[in-house]
Amino acid sequence: MQIKELGEFGLIDRLTKEFPIVNKSTELSVGDDCAILDYTGKKTLVTKDLLLEGVHFDLTYCPLLHLGYKSAIVNFSDVYAMNGKPKQMVVGLGVSSKLCVEDLDELYAGMKIACEEHGVDLIGGDTTASLNGLTISITCIGEGEEGKIVKRSGAKDTDLICVTGDLGAAYMGLLLLEREKEVFNAGKGSDPDFAGKEYLVERQLKPRARKDIIESLERINVVPTSMMDISDGLSSELLHICKASHVGCRIYEDRIPIDYLTAQMAEEMNMNMTMAAMNGGEDYELLFTIPLSMHDTFKALTEVTLPGVPRPDIKIIGHITAENLGARMITRGGGEIDIQAQGWNSLKE
Amino acid sequence: MQIKELGEFGLIDRLTKEFPIVNKSTELSVGDDCAILDYTGKKTLVTKDLLLEGVHFDLTYCPLLHLGYKSAIVNFSDVYAMNGKPKQMVVGLGVSSKLCVEDLDELYAGMKIACEEHGVDLIGGDTTASLNGLTISITCIGEGEEGKIVKRSGAKDTDLICVTGDLGAAYMGLLLLEREKEVFNAGKGSDPDFAGKEYLVERQLKPRARKDIIESLERINVVPTSMMDISDGLSSELLHICKASHVGCRIYEDRIPIDYLTAQMAEEMNMNMTMAAMNGGEDYELLFTIPLSMHDTFKALTEVTLPGVPRPDIKIIGHITAENLGARMITRGGGEIDIQAQGWNSLKE
Repeated sequence: MQIKELGEFGLIDRLTKEFPIVNKSTELSVGDDCAILDYTGKKTLVTKDLLLEGVHFDLTYCPLLHLGYKSAIVNFSDVYAMNGKPKQMVVGLGVSSKLCVEDLDELYAGMKIACEEHGVDLIGGDTTASLNGLTISITCIGEGEEGKIVKRSGAKDTDLICVTGDLGAAYMGLLLLEREKEVFNAGKGSDPDFAGKEYLVERQLKPRARKDIIESLERINVVPTSMMDISDGLSSELLHICKASHVGCRIYEDRIPIDYLTAQMAEEMNMNMTMAAMNGGEDYELLFTIPLSMHDTFKALTEVTLPGVPRPDIKIIGHITAENLGARMITRGGGEIDIQAQGWNSLKE
Repeated sequence: MQIKELGEFGLIDRLTKEFPIVNKSTELSVGDDCAILDYTGKKTLVTKDLLLEGVHFDLTYCPLLHLGYKSAIVNFSDVYAMNGKPKQMVVGLGVSSKLCVEDLDELYAGMKIACEEHGVDLIGGDTTASLNGLTISITCIGEGEEGKIVKRSGAKDTDLICVTGDLGAAYMGLLLLEREKEVFNAGKGSDPDFAGKEYLVERQLKPRARKDIIESLERINVVPTSMMDISDGLSSELLHICKASHVGCRIYEDRIPIDYLTAQMAEEMNMNMTMAAMNGGEDYELLFTIPLSMHDTFKALTEVTLPGVPRPDIKIIGHITAENLGARMITRGGGEIDIQAQGWNSLKE
C-alpha cells in the first residue's frame, strides 16, 4: 500500500494502534498536541537519538524490523546508563518515497518488540514526508529515583571500573556486513555468507539495552558512582567519565572483554582486536565505576548463581586514579599507552 | 569554520554554552546520557516536531536564524495548546556538509531567542552528520497543572469556538516567498520585492507561540473545554476537535479573522481568502472552546483595556453542536458547506 493512500493521520493511527499503554505515569498518549505524563515523586530522564539513512544505517543490509528495534534500544540504553528505567518514547519519522506502508509496519513492529521487552509506552511523535532518505528521531523519557540516578561525574580515585558483556563485536559485525555488501555488489554471484559469525551480525543489527544489569545492581543495592553506555567506543566513554569526574584511569588490556568471534574476525581483517574493542562503538554495554569497598559484594553478584536468575556478565577492567595521572591503558606487554578517543564521530574527518 | 574541525562534542559545546538554565525543574542539562528533570507535583507534557529541508523549509529564502527560532516555536505552541508552559527542549540535528559552524551558530541563535522569550531550557540532544539536507528534530517538555490541562476531547454542545490572531497570513507569506524565488531564479534581475507585505513574510518565517493568550486565560481563571494550535489549517483542526470530542460545529465565514494584507494577497493570487484561512496552516494561533456561560467574562477579557496589559486578540467564530449535525461553515451568503480537511499533509498526494 502506498503511504499517500493513508495520509499522515491514517498512517499514525495504523502504526500506533497496536502499542498498549503499560505505565501508570502515561496519562495521555498519541493523538493530542502533547502527551501527558505524571511523574509525581520521581525524577524524569530525557534522552534523544537521531538515526539518518546513509549515516547510521544502510537499508541494503539492515532489515526495517531490526532498525525499528535498534532505534528504540539505543535510546533505552541511555536511560539505563543513568540507572533509570525507560517509560515512554516519542517517535519522529521522516519517510522517504521509496517506502510503502508495509515497510513502516515492519519498522514499528521492531519498535514494538523493544517497547514490550522494556515496558515502554509509545506516546506520540511526528510523521512527515522526507525528500532524502529515512529519518528516525526518538526521544525517550524515563524515571529515576532521588539519590539513585548515576551521572558521568561521580567517579572517585581508587573506584573500580566495570564493563558489561563484551566489546568490539558490533563493529566487527558492521565490517562483515559491509564486506559482504561489496562482494554482493561486485556481482560475484554468492549470497552473503555469515555462517558461524551470526553473533557479530546480531550485535550490530540487534543490540541489547542492559536492563538486566540495572536490575542486578538494584537487587544487591549497589549504586555505581558513575555510569555511561558504550555507544561511541570504550576509549571515548572512558574519557567522558574522566573529564566529567575530574579523574584519571588505568585499564588493563588483558581485562577488556572480547568475544572469540570478534578476535577471529579482527585477525581476518588484519586489525588489532583491542583497538576494535576500544574504538568500535555501538556495543551498548554499560561502563560504570563502583567504590573499591564494594569489591566483595560485587564479586558475589557476578560469581554466585541464584536459581532462576541469570548471572550478570560484568568484568572489572581497571581503576580510577587522580586526574594528573591521565587516562592510560596497561598493555599486554606491560607498557602504558594514552587512551585516545578514536571512536564513532560522524562530524569528524 | 568547517564543522569537522570541531567534531561532535566540540560542536555541541560551542552551540549550547550560551544557553542559561532558567527553570527549577531542570536538574541536569546537556552533557550526560540523559537530562534530569524534577516535575514534582506537576504533570509533564511532551511534544515533538520534525523539520526537514525541502519539505518544511527552503534554505534559499529561510534564514537560519529564523529557522532556529521557528523550529523551537512550533514545539512551544503545542505545549501552550494544552494550556501548559514549555520548560525544556531537546534538539536533534542532522547537519548537511553544505553548512559551516557559523551557519549552525545562526540556527542556535534563533533557538536561543525563542528560549529566552518563552523561558525554556535547552537540555540536550543529538548532533550528527546528514548526507541529505538539514534535519531538525525538537522535543519539547512542558508542565501543566492538575485539572487545568486542556485536551482536544472536551468540547461540549453549545460551547463557543474561539480563534486568536488572524489566519491565512503565514500561507500567503509562503506563496509570496515562493513567487519571488521563481522570479529571482528566472533571472529577471530584480531583488525580491516584499514592500508593504512584510507582515505576511514575517508570519511565515517568524511565527508567534501564543504564551500571552495562555497567560490572559489564566488571569481571568478561564480553562477552555478543548484547545489546539492551528498548524495544519483551521479546517483540519476543527475536525480534530469534533472527532476527539464527539461533537459537531458551526462556524461563520464572516467571523474568521483575516488580515487585510492576507485578503489583498489572496486577490492578487486569484485565491479565495477564506480558503487560505481555513486550509493555509502554519499560523500557530490557538483554537479553543469555552462554555457559553463564560461569554461575558470572556467579552470583558477581549474588550476591556487594563493599563500595561495588551488586550488579547481573540474572536468567537462559531459554536459547538451535537455530533449528528456535522461540521459546517455558514458562508457570507447564508449557505452552509461541509468543513473538509484540505490543510497541510506532507504524506498525502
